Amino acid sequence: MDLKLNLSLFSSVKVNLEENEIYDALIIGGGPAAMNALLYCGRKRLKVGMITQDIGGQIIKSSSIENWLGDADIRSSVLVNRFYDHVQKFELPIKLETQVKAIETEGKIKKVSCNNGMSFQAKSIIIATGKSPRLLGIPGEEQFTGKGVAYCTTCDGPAFIDKKVIVVGGGNSGVEAAIDMLSYAKEVVIVQNLSELTADSVLAEKVLHDSRVHVIYDSVCVRIEGNDGVEKLVVLNTVQNQESAIKTDAVFVEIGLIPTSGFVPDSIKNKGGEIIVKNDCSTAISGIFAAGDVTDVPFKQVVIAAGEGAKAALATYNYIITQ
Amino acid sequence: MDLKLNLSLFSSVKVNLEENEIYDALIIGGGPAAMNALLYCGRKRLKVGMITQDIGGQIIKSSSIENWLGDADIRSSVLVNRFYDHVQKFELPIKLETQVKAIETEGKIKKVSCNNGMSFQAKSIIIATGKSPRLLGIPGEEQFTGKGVAYCTTCDGPAFIDKKVIVVGGGNSGVEAAIDMLSYAKEVVIVQNLSELTADSVLAEKVLHDSRVHVIYDSVCVRIEGNDGVEKLVVLNTVQNQESAIKTDAVFVEIGLIPTSGFVPDSIKNKGGEIIVKNDCSTAISGIFAAGDVTDVPFKQVVIAAGEGAKAALATYNYIITQ
Repeated sequence: MDLKLNLSLFSSVKVNLEENEIYDALIIGGGPAAMNALLYCGRKRLKVGMITQDIGGQIIKSSSIENWLGDADIRSSVLVNRFYDHVQKFELPIKLETQVKAIETEGKIKKVSCNNGMSFQAKSIIIATGKSPRLLGIPGEEQFTGKGVAYCTTCDGPAFIDKKVIVVGGGNSGVEAAIDMLSYAKEVVIVQNLSELTADSVLAEKVLHDSRVHVIYDSVCVRIEGNDGVEKLVVLNTVQNQESAIKTDAVFVEIGLIPTSGFVPDSIKNKGGEIIVKNDCSTAISGIFAAGDVTDVPFKQVVIAAGEGAKAALATYNYIITQ
Repeated sequence: MDLKLNLSLFSSVKVNLEENEIYDALIIGGGPAAMNALLYCGRKRLKVGMITQDIGGQIIKSSSIENWLGDADIRSSVLVNRFYDHVQKFELPIKLETQVKAIETEGKIKKVSCNNGMSFQAKSIIIATGKSPRLLGIPGEEQFTGKGVAYCTTCDGPAFIDKKVIVVGGGNSGVEAAIDMLSYAKEVVIVQNLSELTADSVLAEKVLHDSRVHVIYDSVCVRIEGNDGVEKLVVLNTVQNQESAIKTDAVFVEIGLIPTSGFVPDSIKNKGGEIIVKNDCSTAISGIFAAGDVTDVPFKQVVIAAGEGAKAALATYNYIITQ
């Protein structure tokens, strides 16, 4: 799924984020934590804006959501649109398709610098950038991303009908992705670095009992080869210390998530790169708040992220009115 | 509003909570934190049940909710019903109209004792009992509760059309209640213990500019008098040290909220009676978790409570599978 296409489905942003303004708060991110932080800042009439690459965050990687309280089964895209419509009521500036490169957190006025060269200023920052897929970090991965290498079966699975695909990862995300791909592909190979699947038994049994699924154990990925698109994944069996090439049309990488916090000072992150927050979503740096999957709050769920976004906004409000 | 009447609107509970069973988890409370904890425990297939006096918690004291992400304006009763319908899908035991008197938290099996003489056992407890209105604690208050003394203008306001009413409290809740009552009453008196209203200016201005509202400053409530119903509130002006009686048809008490945590061991509460939780909603007692307004997590909001309920359930699940 092309996120740019996806963004065009949303109602357009009516107000521009301005480089020469000083905002009360800038929210970085576009998932449920960020959207709810924007909603709550808007309700508190803060001068607030949002900078994000996309809208929805990780929700858009699921096809449906069954655990948003009050909606027993809702399509992810419908839920994201409902969130976004609600937030849009306040006509707040949202800078879309924009990645943050660095933040300056010292002093009363913080600065947010973006990859497109723009920079914005605010008295406070709420970081709600979530997590993104962990990469394999092997030759060919970057080259073939979008040409057979993918990180979201919900988004890109439908492009591989009756094809052979590889899913890298034998945990819950990997096995769920393999099950997803059985709706499309004629053959699914799971590459797992351990001698067994680590997914919950109920999930693992589903793929182990399906003749269209083949699991390659004790193997790590070495490189991806191809011409116009992916043709082979080369793996190394770490027990036999032997390389082999698996022919495939696609490689879905499902080896976990990492916090999108490269631009965040190390002093407020834990070893895993998560931002350390107090119970009001403040950090050790005055005026810097964080919410959702990018933080060290356990359990990554839409409703938890939304709740944390509200907390961060209300803590930011208290910070602003006491400045 | 009679909560028993209110409960009858909900779909009935199909499974009984049993005294001779040992549950994985028992959830105490019926607001958004409790309901979401039940939903998440149900999805994790824990053997779980809920004990509560009512469904909805403090939501039912508002007429509508504007900050549940994805629903820009929804009637509180509709939202509560949507929550409850979602939770009911798992057909879990819910013991309604039941107040918890005491919990035994020592050892692997905890015990929950109720005011109706019943008691239940579980390996873990999630406390999500929320907050309830702070009482005046003066003569006549208990006697006239339901006969003119009330704690919820949304619930009981409509009974006082064209009457004169008193709202005790000049903070946000008091002034909001006074504004609420202007839809019904012909005259509203606010009794405030300080020399000015402490509500947000935007709210305070609304009542100060309305000729139907009269504010009595520097005054504390002494006693409530009447026969079949409330007739007078006697107040003491603390500056002049002089008592006076105000004729009225109703006294709405809006002086804040206190955590419903009388049955919770002091060792896990702060001075205000809130349960102290870590960022996964666990407490200092093994197997005891807490979520929502009853905890020391700041900012009391439906979405925050729901998020905390999910966290508490997932932390409880991790606790149960490692026992």
